[in-house]
Amino acid sequence: MKIDGQSWRTIWLEEGGRSVGVIDQTLLPHRFTTRSLSSCDQAAEAIRTMVVRGAPLIGVTGAYGLMLALQVDPSDASLAAAFEQLNATRPTAVNLRWALERVRDLVAPLPPEQRAEAAQAEAAAIADEDVAMCEAIGEHGLAIFQELAAARPGTTFNVLTHCNAGWLATVDWGTALAPIYKAHRAGLDIHVWVDETRPRNQGASLTAYELGREGVPHTVIVDNAGGHLMQHGQVDAVIVGTDRTTRRGDVCNKIGTYLKALAARDNAIPFYVALPASTIDWQIDDGVAEIPIEARSPKEVTHIQGRGPDGGITSVQLSPDGSPGFNPAFDVTPARLVTALITERGVVAASADGLKELYGDV
Amino acid sequence: MKIDGQSWRTIWLEEGGRSVGVIDQTLLPHRFTTRSLSSCDQAAEAIRTMVVRGAPLIGVTGAYGLMLALQVDPSDASLAAAFEQLNATRPTAVNLRWALERVRDLVAPLPPEQRAEAAQAEAAAIADEDVAMCEAIGEHGLAIFQELAAARPGTTFNVLTHCNAGWLATVDWGTALAPIYKAHRAGLDIHVWVDETRPRNQGASLTAYELGREGVPHTVIVDNAGGHLMQHGQVDAVIVGTDRTTRRGDVCNKIGTYLKALAARDNAIPFYVALPASTIDWQIDDGVAEIPIEARSPKEVTHIQGRGPDGGITSVQLSPDGSPGFNPAFDVTPARLVTALITERGVVAASADGLKELYGDV
Repeated sequence: MKIDGQSWRTIWLEEGGRSVGVIDQTLLPHRFTTRSLSSCDQAAEAIRTMVVRGAPLIGVTGAYGLMLALQVDPSDASLAAAFEQLNATRPTAVNLRWALERVRDLVAPLPPEQRAEAAQAEAAAIADEDVAMCEAIGEHGLAIFQELAAARPGTTFNVLTHCNAGWLATVDWGTALAPIYKAHRAGLDIHVWVDETRPRNQGASLTAYELGREGVPHTVIVDNAGGHLMQHGQVDAVIVGTDRTTRRGDVCNKIGTYLKALAARDNAIPFYVALPASTIDWQIDDGVAEIPIEARSPKEVTHIQGRGPDGGITSVQLSPDGSPGFNPAFDVTPARLVTALITERGVVAASADGLKELYGDV
Repeated sequence: MKIDGQSWRTIWLEEGGRSVGVIDQTLLPHRFTTRSLSSCDQAAEAIRTMVVRGAPLIGVTGAYGLMLALQVDPSDASLAAAFEQLNATRPTAVNLRWALERVRDLVAPLPPEQRAEAAQAEAAAIADEDVAMCEAIGEHGLAIFQELAAARPGTTFNVLTHCNAGWLATVDWGTALAPIYKAHRAGLDIHVWVDETRPRNQGASLTAYELGREGVPHTVIVDNAGGHLMQHGQVDAVIVGTDRTTRRGDVCNKIGTYLKALAARDNAIPFYVALPASTIDWQIDDGVAEIPIEARSPKEVTHIQGRGPDGGITSVQLSPDGSPGFNPAFDVTPARLVTALITERGVVAASADGLKELYGDV
């Protein structure tokens, strides 16, 4: 996607092949900076501190992290240690484990001296596949949006999204935002309600930034406002991403997604979840009972970062000294609240049968 | 209620009787400051800028605002102008209009020279009645909490609340928080989940402050987190206030209340609304269709105020330059999602019949 007219991906192999470049997402939307990750430690740290975030991008970063470890030490012990280190950075998204396993299982049978190169090729393949999958999700979602919009000719098509499942969360295009970009480029009169997505405000800081750079009309709202907009006919569809999808179609996404799904259901508004197959956890059925929910630092609740009056990025304290915070990072939206899953293979019911229909071969 | 061991009300007539004192709520929780309002203009400005807020407190402030106007000029024209000025400050809460009408209707038939004194007595009476009503709400709510807690002996009773319907929103005790204070003082093992309540964060800044000063165990969460906590059995009851209640029991409260009501219903958790009769609008039936929702400045969405690293209160920008915000301040929770209304006269179903049962004489 574009920033100031220039095309970017969120992660790339740097010249020399011994480091990868990423966009530092902790400084957006106020400052656009790239960072170079030249060790597995740095890759793990970038994931943990959310310099990179978004389930698909975390997966690709993890894959390159294994490459960086193997470049230094291609032994079995090094591979196992790097796998563990990277896998422990974020517990909820399933793409990370999926990408790590894919690289590990490919390189483990190889002679150590071939491993780093094979890991590099596989990480690049995962990145390229992610771009292709996201673009396919965009095409499938576009068809849905066009059909819904055709039922309301002459009016703006209003989509609400939560958190950031845009190109910054993937390698390019995004998952939930891919259909929005496709629709905007296809000339659909589309407008996006952007949930700010406390505590880390990925909506206000990343989704609004992305949409602004691409020129897509949008408005930032607090997370509390979506239900009210839906009650008043100002939302035609909701679309979100997912960090982990169970085999029956429960969807684990950024905290607060469940509340929007409830409001969509209460107002008969379609609620879509966009995902590549890599987010599906075929081992798990009941998302609420079985998915581990990452509890992040309470400081993300009691404080917030923004651009201060002097233009510098600063953190301010919101709650009183002595008042503790609790910070679960994800929640689970049961399949019953999901109108359909939009995957790279097509659109399907959020159910075991629906997923089996598309992914019977997996 | 108490701050550092000292008892306070949120509004009081100052010595000499020609000004009223209030707590400046825009600086909490970081700084405790009082302000003196010595004209109708200052009273109106204090309401508009949310130096005072909360439906019951706005009403009392409005009543004293009329007194301040009449002290300067007790003519019919002055009374009418002050009424219009104060009534226009906040459009959603019904207590303001109710209190203004009560004072106006009392003083209008009097000779001008008696009006200021009569307004002062009436404003004081409204304040005293508010305290008594809130305490009665506390007693009725306490009985509910004790009954619910008795069904889970040996466990902490977890209540979730949204925004601030505490003593800072009233003259003393609060509405939704009154039962919590009563329960805590009665020795119930109670813990409160405090929704931060973006955009103005009245939960994190005011509710957490109040609860902390009274020593009530509590934890601040982002507005997105409540549904997840409810899914995991960590919420035993939800209690909120209301700025306007329709005659059939629809409840207009701080934006985001509706989302919590949906989640409570989805998880079979009781959802209570605490209110004095002054918030009931007997003219209105369908809250979603009929209640005007105040749209406040988008800057409350795109920026946030907190305590900076240097200890000063500062505002930081959250979203990118060029991304607009939209800021509806309230939403409506339909009566069907409300388990019961807790009023100063008792507990009743959120329905026309329920309200008629208690207020047939009104």
